[in-house]
Amino acid sequence: MEELRFLQKAERLKKELIRETVVLEGSERILKDNDEIVFDLGDHYVGYLTVDLSSVGHHQDAPLYFQIVFAEIKEELDQDTDDYHGWISKSWIQEEKIHIDVLPCSYRFERRYAFRYVKIRILNVSSNYSVRIDRLKVEAVSSADYRNVSYPEFSEADRKLDEVSLRTLHSCMQDVFEDGPKRDRRLWLGDLRLEALTNYYAFQNYDLVKRCLYLFAGSTLEEGRLASNVFTAPKVECDFQTMFDYTLFFICVLKDYYEASKDRETLIDLEPVCMRQYELLKDCFDEDDTIDLQKAGNVFVDWNFDLDKKASGQAIYIYALKDLLKIETELGKDVSSIEEEIKRKTEAALRMYDEEKGLFLSNSQISWMSQVWMILAGVTDPQTGRQILKNAENSEAAIRINSPYAYHHLIQAMIDVGLKEEAYEKMHGFWDGMIEKGSDTFWEIYNPEDPYVSPYGGLVVHSFCHAWSCTPSYFLRKYYY
Amino acid sequence: MEELRFLQKAERLKKELIRETVVLEGSERILKDNDEIVFDLGDHYVGYLTVDLSSVGHHQDAPLYFQIVFAEIKEELDQDTDDYHGWISKSWIQEEKIHIDVLPCSYRFERRYAFRYVKIRILNVSSNYSVRIDRLKVEAVSSADYRNVSYPEFSEADRKLDEVSLRTLHSCMQDVFEDGPKRDRRLWLGDLRLEALTNYYAFQNYDLVKRCLYLFAGSTLEEGRLASNVFTAPKVECDFQTMFDYTLFFICVLKDYYEASKDRETLIDLEPVCMRQYELLKDCFDEDDTIDLQKAGNVFVDWNFDLDKKASGQAIYIYALKDLLKIETELGKDVSSIEEEIKRKTEAALRMYDEEKGLFLSNSQISWMSQVWMILAGVTDPQTGRQILKNAENSEAAIRINSPYAYHHLIQAMIDVGLKEEAYEKMHGFWDGMIEKGSDTFWEIYNPEDPYVSPYGGLVVHSFCHAWSCTPSYFLRKYYY
Repeated sequence: MEELRFLQKAERLKKELIRETVVLEGSERILKDNDEIVFDLGDHYVGYLTVDLSSVGHHQDAPLYFQIVFAEIKEELDQDTDDYHGWISKSWIQEEKIHIDVLPCSYRFERRYAFRYVKIRILNVSSNYSVRIDRLKVEAVSSADYRNVSYPEFSEADRKLDEVSLRTLHSCMQDVFEDGPKRDRRLWLGDLRLEALTNYYAFQNYDLVKRCLYLFAGSTLEEGRLASNVFTAPKVECDFQTMFDYTLFFICVLKDYYEASKDRETLIDLEPVCMRQYELLKDCFDEDDTIDLQKAGNVFVDWNFDLDKKASGQAIYIYALKDLLKIETELGKDVSSIEEEIKRKTEAALRMYDEEKGLFLSNSQISWMSQVWMILAGVTDPQTGRQILKNAENSEAAIRINSPYAYHHLIQAMIDVGLKEEAYEKMHGFWDGMIEKGSDTFWEIYNPEDPYVSPYGGLVVHSFCHAWSCTPSYFLRKYYY
Repeated sequence: MEELRFLQKAERLKKELIRETVVLEGSERILKDNDEIVFDLGDHYVGYLTVDLSSVGHHQDAPLYFQIVFAEIKEELDQDTDDYHGWISKSWIQEEKIHIDVLPCSYRFERRYAFRYVKIRILNVSSNYSVRIDRLKVEAVSSADYRNVSYPEFSEADRKLDEVSLRTLHSCMQDVFEDGPKRDRRLWLGDLRLEALTNYYAFQNYDLVKRCLYLFAGSTLEEGRLASNVFTAPKVECDFQTMFDYTLFFICVLKDYYEASKDRETLIDLEPVCMRQYELLKDCFDEDDTIDLQKAGNVFVDWNFDLDKKASGQAIYIYALKDLLKIETELGKDVSSIEEEIKRKTEAALRMYDEEKGLFLSNSQISWMSQVWMILAGVTDPQTGRQILKNAENSEAAIRINSPYAYHHLIQAMIDVGLKEEAYEKMHGFWDGMIEKGSDTFWEIYNPEDPYVSPYGGLVVHSFCHAWSCTPSYFLRKYYY
């Protein structure tokens, strides 16, 4: 019953998207079989394309068959999509093959794409006619309104960093906060948390965060467990997959939302959902108060199969419980048992600390993320935290950070322990690389040492506009301006 | 001015197509990447397909990408379309690749297809879900109404021959008489003539013939010359290509139409167009009254590049002039000059006759079509005609007949010289082969000795429902019942 009410609330919070029309002149080029032409819209858009095509020469005496490729970054256009055989479904590749029986034609693609570049390749005409592309029109959509954004007096480097961050978030803000508008176009709790944080400092669309909270609350797995993500079409349904950390982040998103919006009604309404997650997940620990990864199941932390998640999982649990403590305190509830839980789990966390190495060990593994999350969870004092980060830097064996999502947490941890200037340099050092490559948005995956590396077996399925990479705008506005 | 009036008349004769809905149950089969499924609609249809698809398993977490192939005959489905590199545009191949973002989905294909078989091949799903095809719905269209057809008491063989002939014509009768609803979907004068003849004996849609006559009359090349074919979309425009014989057939179509409909108003209205063709084409002859192929340009006669067209062209001119004579006589005009022209051209035709061989020679070439058209033009008496056909039969060097279109003329010539029984056998001998191969319609190209031979370099672009092959219904009803 409660879930139905939550979903109805989510549905009522669904609003008309903001629409923007972008028109691009076509080309005078006369195209025959195998001719290609690339159009550059000059910025990243999410929306619906209409292409105006006409025939040249004799009357069109056979259908036109053409291929269209939509690309977020230019490098995608060079990929041979036939060569992609990775585990992510090939169906995400943004390309279509279209027959046009009668030219001239204003052809509107029914599907939504995320793109800056459009490549059109003529597959077949007949010998009696050729084709010309007269115009491209994009009806771009977003639920992010630039008119709500105020801009501090940024340095040029920060202005650019902010611009690309906001463009990333803008493109991901649709009917829900999507992880990426190209792929998976889906509401994930981990992405939502970072998007919401940035949104509060920029587009200030509180209702969209609220809607997403209610979508999660209204669509749970057995016993009320929150899934890692929910689908919204054809109807709202949560994914069968759970992640220990993503489930807990619901608490953090609600706490952040309340702090930003002061929407007490929603806090009261959804607090039981937070408590339910706590009740369910507190059983994922062994008698020594350390997380049991068998019981906890999947803990995401970072896109890294080599990473041992025990320490990070332990820390994220503490981190989330501290937010739950704030919620409960705000609502005047008895928080003694939560305080006790935090205390015991923190003590267990500290037992993972290797005094000699000056680093947290996760099943004896040294990794950046273990240090980062222990710092974010506040199990150490700032001074120790600074030393830990220095020790990690000096540890060649430390499992590295892979995703911009995990990079966000490093930057936050550095700021938390007072390394504000170093965090600023680190942030620019990482994110600027994508800007230098001419991207209008920040990527799902980025390794400065190997920018076009693909864990998926091909760039064509990468999301080059990915929500979890949008947080430089949050850092800049919260800590530096 | 006159052309505009003709086109307005054609436009007014355009009527709503007759629509028929055909629903086919889907399949319980659960489909993953590369799985294929073939649906058989049980008859040949021209129209619009809607496929209902749904997902099975977990929530659809990536688009569905599938390929669909529409086929008129089963053998088309075995073709690898990538292998086709012939001169007819590949864009005619009836296949599409479609992404579906949200399942379940009732996907309606916007284009019109001609098909009995539908093959669906799943290109990509994700590992989390599979696909099921729940239903196929065809909205079939035609301007031929079976309720107007009356059926004599056919023998079983004739009933079947008639059924397939009429299905062929039915599928080709759309907004115009198309040559083939798969390819080229276009109004050609040569096809129109045979379709109209059969139509008078079956569907009796006189207005569609009238509309087509006005489309030709309203869209001519310089000096009022009729093209071989006209396009109707995006607006009416005639093709730049002319054919000597097709231009002349306008006269025959009008004469046949008048005989069938007694529509004197149209006869009066379009008679000047016939006279104009005569005026233009009578200059294509040399001083000895034989056709000058350089001046005449393209003469179609048959799909045969080896065929010398001189004798056939000469004969078709006489044939058409005899129809013009009937029109002029009917309208009470002075016909002396036409009679004189027929006389002189017939004398020239007879000079092409080789007494020794008992055959007409076309630039010294012996061919079936030269004999057939000389007989149809009535330059010989029936008895000589019979002997000529016998001599052709015995001449191994005679260039053979290729298309069902040319075969029609052979049957007509045999009947004209009194070989009615032999013509009946010949007709069954030729057309029955396609029925035995399980086809619901008659083909554009058919060689009984090599049924799947392709002059185009691939079966995928063949039209297996082709107007010019529909005339057995005409022969059966006019001469045998």
